[in-house]
Amino acid sequence: MRLIHLLAATALASAPLAAQDTPPPAPEFARIVDEGTNRSQVMVLAQQMTDVLGPRLTNSPAMRRAEDWAVAEFQRIGLSNVRKDGFDFGRGWSIERSSVRMVTPRPVQLTAIPIAWTPPVNATAPIIVAPMEKKEHFAAWRGKLAGKFVLVSPPGAPKEGTEPAFKRLSGEDIAKLDTYREPTWDPARNERTLAASTFEEDLDAFLKAEGAVGLVRKSYRDNKLLHGEGYQHRTGAQTPGIEIANEDYRRLARLAAMGQAPTLEVVSDVKFDDSNPQAYNILADIPGTDRTGSYVMAGAHFDSWVAGDGATDNAAGSAMVMEAARIIRASGIRPKRTIRFALWNGEEQSLYGSISYIEKYLARRPAPAAPQNSEQNYYGQTWRYPVTPLPGYRDLAAYFNIDNGSGKLRGIYAENNSAAVPILREWLSPFAPMGAGSVVFGRTGGTDHQFMAAVGLPAFQFIQDPLDYSSVTHHSNADTFDHLKPADMRQGAMVLAWMLIKAANADAPLPRNPIPRQPLPTDPFQTPDPNAE
Amino acid sequence: MRLIHLLAATALASAPLAAQDTPPPAPEFARIVDEGTNRSQVMVLAQQMTDVLGPRLTNSPAMRRAEDWAVAEFQRIGLSNVRKDGFDFGRGWSIERSSVRMVTPRPVQLTAIPIAWTPPVNATAPIIVAPMEKKEHFAAWRGKLAGKFVLVSPPGAPKEGTEPAFKRLSGEDIAKLDTYREPTWDPARNERTLAASTFEEDLDAFLKAEGAVGLVRKSYRDNKLLHGEGYQHRTGAQTPGIEIANEDYRRLARLAAMGQAPTLEVVSDVKFDDSNPQAYNILADIPGTDRTGSYVMAGAHFDSWVAGDGATDNAAGSAMVMEAARIIRASGIRPKRTIRFALWNGEEQSLYGSISYIEKYLARRPAPAAPQNSEQNYYGQTWRYPVTPLPGYRDLAAYFNIDNGSGKLRGIYAENNSAAVPILREWLSPFAPMGAGSVVFGRTGGTDHQFMAAVGLPAFQFIQDPLDYSSVTHHSNADTFDHLKPADMRQGAMVLAWMLIKAANADAPLPRNPIPRQPLPTDPFQTPDPNAE
Repeated sequence: MRLIHLLAATALASAPLAAQDTPPPAPEFARIVDEGTNRSQVMVLAQQMTDVLGPRLTNSPAMRRAEDWAVAEFQRIGLSNVRKDGFDFGRGWSIERSSVRMVTPRPVQLTAIPIAWTPPVNATAPIIVAPMEKKEHFAAWRGKLAGKFVLVSPPGAPKEGTEPAFKRLSGEDIAKLDTYREPTWDPARNERTLAASTFEEDLDAFLKAEGAVGLVRKSYRDNKLLHGEGYQHRTGAQTPGIEIANEDYRRLARLAAMGQAPTLEVVSDVKFDDSNPQAYNILADIPGTDRTGSYVMAGAHFDSWVAGDGATDNAAGSAMVMEAARIIRASGIRPKRTIRFALWNGEEQSLYGSISYIEKYLARRPAPAAPQNSEQNYYGQTWRYPVTPLPGYRDLAAYFNIDNGSGKLRGIYAENNSAAVPILREWLSPFAPMGAGSVVFGRTGGTDHQFMAAVGLPAFQFIQDPLDYSSVTHHSNADTFDHLKPADMRQGAMVLAWMLIKAANADAPLPRNPIPRQPLPTDPFQTPDPNAE
Repeated sequence: MRLIHLLAATALASAPLAAQDTPPPAPEFARIVDEGTNRSQVMVLAQQMTDVLGPRLTNSPAMRRAEDWAVAEFQRIGLSNVRKDGFDFGRGWSIERSSVRMVTPRPVQLTAIPIAWTPPVNATAPIIVAPMEKKEHFAAWRGKLAGKFVLVSPPGAPKEGTEPAFKRLSGEDIAKLDTYREPTWDPARNERTLAASTFEEDLDAFLKAEGAVGLVRKSYRDNKLLHGEGYQHRTGAQTPGIEIANEDYRRLARLAAMGQAPTLEVVSDVKFDDSNPQAYNILADIPGTDRTGSYVMAGAHFDSWVAGDGATDNAAGSAMVMEAARIIRASGIRPKRTIRFALWNGEEQSLYGSISYIEKYLARRPAPAAPQNSEQNYYGQTWRYPVTPLPGYRDLAAYFNIDNGSGKLRGIYAENNSAAVPILREWLSPFAPMGAGSVVFGRTGGTDHQFMAAVGLPAFQFIQDPLDYSSVTHHSNADTFDHLKPADMRQGAMVLAWMLIKAANADAPLPRNPIPRQPLPTDPFQTPDPNAE
């Protein structure tokens, strides 16, 4: 409804000019809204990324096709310097087919998915329920796992879904986000997490050494949802692994407890692809008129997990980024600063793509002593200080990230950058009638702006209506195109395009906080992310 | 909390007797609560019915095992005259394994289930999206379906889950149920439904005649839930049929619309079993001291669909009925009237078991002109008047049904029987502190008390907390033992046991309304069932 009013108003504003021979161009804001509303391509882009390209696990054959598609699409839109920017990642992996059945004591076709980067298996074997959540639990099961599918998760009980699965933020919800929290660092907790960070590899090696046929994990959502995340992308796991839906997993565990010893028949027809260990960020520019090297940037991670088609996480953000580029090009607006668009890769395994960009072009932090797995890479960032700016550090005038599903943009997190708050508020103000006018002081984490902010750059993520992102689609097999909201996606692309124009054409770059010397308040272990589950 | 207070109170009441040598028996209510709380077997029974026996599709091999188990269990509890009471039903059917994959344009393992009573198939073929919801739609697709998997459902869009999936009733919710609605019969609507009632068979025959490889239907719940209901239990369908999860179905339909022509690989390894067309209600008695033939009865349908284990629909009610029998036997209370327990069969296909019991023992209604399919059997009941009572009509003094999931009993529907309201209220009053004290004037339908009430018998169904029955578990692949709530189930069994004792020992049988001469207000097409989805 608000959108209709706004369009009516802009149409009215340009009406008196209709009689002139060559009307002056409409105001920039109206051109963005016209292009983003009446000639939107955001859902076409999102459908290509999901229905057609499918899940985009980093370095999988599907992601290779997606990378090529994105390069071609940015070129088609008319962007410059479209390039693949590589970084070391690991192996490719994909699912060809899978089937998991209980064959005794009675036949049941179970709801299950192979775990990413585990090897294939085609076997029938009994199960054993052996919950293991830390290395200290291994001893109890030594010598008991050979020839078995090992159920490593505690069975648990279903959650009572007393909150709606689908939500939009009220003004009150947004106001709650605008709360300053004083930093409360806990380096000991960080150390404990890092000490436990090899558990997935340790469990894999233990099961291999014990001669287990496979690892079986429980889903973390009820009602038959599946995910299949796995993190051994560098080497691949040694033990085949599957995730089973909660209802089916708990039935197996109960039958085992009754002495009925279920037998599973598992077909996990999956493939590694070692043709290229490099993953690629896709970068593309709209060159600015100012040749000082100063630029602004929008980014979203393009990679996904494999259970669904990576629609809300994060074809949504990727399509909004690409559509913002198209809108700006189509609007004919010439930016002063260059506008760069990034589709990040390897985000799901711990922001590898954006960290690679930071370390190549923006700032260095002390390197870790040894190669890092996903958890080490993520949690290990917390205490990697001091920050050493690279020559490109000052050039990045603003970074905007989108990665919280397809929900309408409601505003932006200012990342504790108090001087930026009034400027962001002014820039967003024309979108207040479309619900996107809020600027909150605080921070959010878990995606690609995070470590830019951690090195002191003006990097921001938008506030979005959560919809069913946390409750249903995030990483799940229900993350498909039909869960995207077209009107929300159109709004998001317009807001992003507008913010990029404002940042690119601002007289001065956004103010910055001092270069941080310690973790920021919403780094891991500081404050909870209200959008995270 | 209320339960603890209640138990404390009853313990206190019997305390002064503790010093006597042979204390008199505790009050009947306290004995029911003690047995049902401290030595409950209801979850043990429910687990046998679900984890061990599995889904209990009428006449399937699993249901044959379940029937034998129920007979043995009633005998073990010490009931008399335990018997299988047969009626004509149709074919047995079961799933051995199934797999549905999209193989082009890219491989995706889909979430799918065979539709009950469809024949097996093992084929790879292209799809065609051909929505057909009534016979008039067939003409548009004639000649276009040969060699194809035919997607017959409109793809639709996901619902926004803005209501909590899991609910308990507030006092206000229950008060809303207590609303009288004047009957508003619409025989023309009934005739229209009956005229459309052969659509499933018609579509099946059309697809067979056209040479379709199989029928593909969309699920009716989002987020990967499946059901697999099918109604051609008399003859079996001619065309193989599968139900595909909404997210997967919509992707197929979208790709087809883009001209990408997906190909499906379908394995539906299902089996018919024609060893016995009879289905069986399981009946068992606790004989009364009064030999007049008057009896009271509790019932729940024991059959289920096949996607889950039929836990909330309706191992829950079946286990509460069986546990009520056990509690009464263990309590040592001798009923004046006989108490009969019924586990109905064929309920899911349209209350076949309870209708068979009515027509054999209670009352006759005009027979239909031709054999009836499920829809005809259900909707055709609406105008089958007059009612001719059989000799057993007066003997049934009260019937109590349970079939709305595992939620706590909150009260009872009085089925417009105003004279029974104060009596039911008095009987339930000791359970008010456990939340079950409400008696509402109105009716509810859709389960086995319905056609007893339709012939004027004092037959009632309880009000239950809905939990996630309508939103998630009802008929779905998430209908498993872990979705049952043990404390609720214990409460339900105690309430049922108590109501049976009160009805069996009441001086006079419950008052009745006049024998109906036309449909009652909540018969089909009258008032909506607040518990139905």
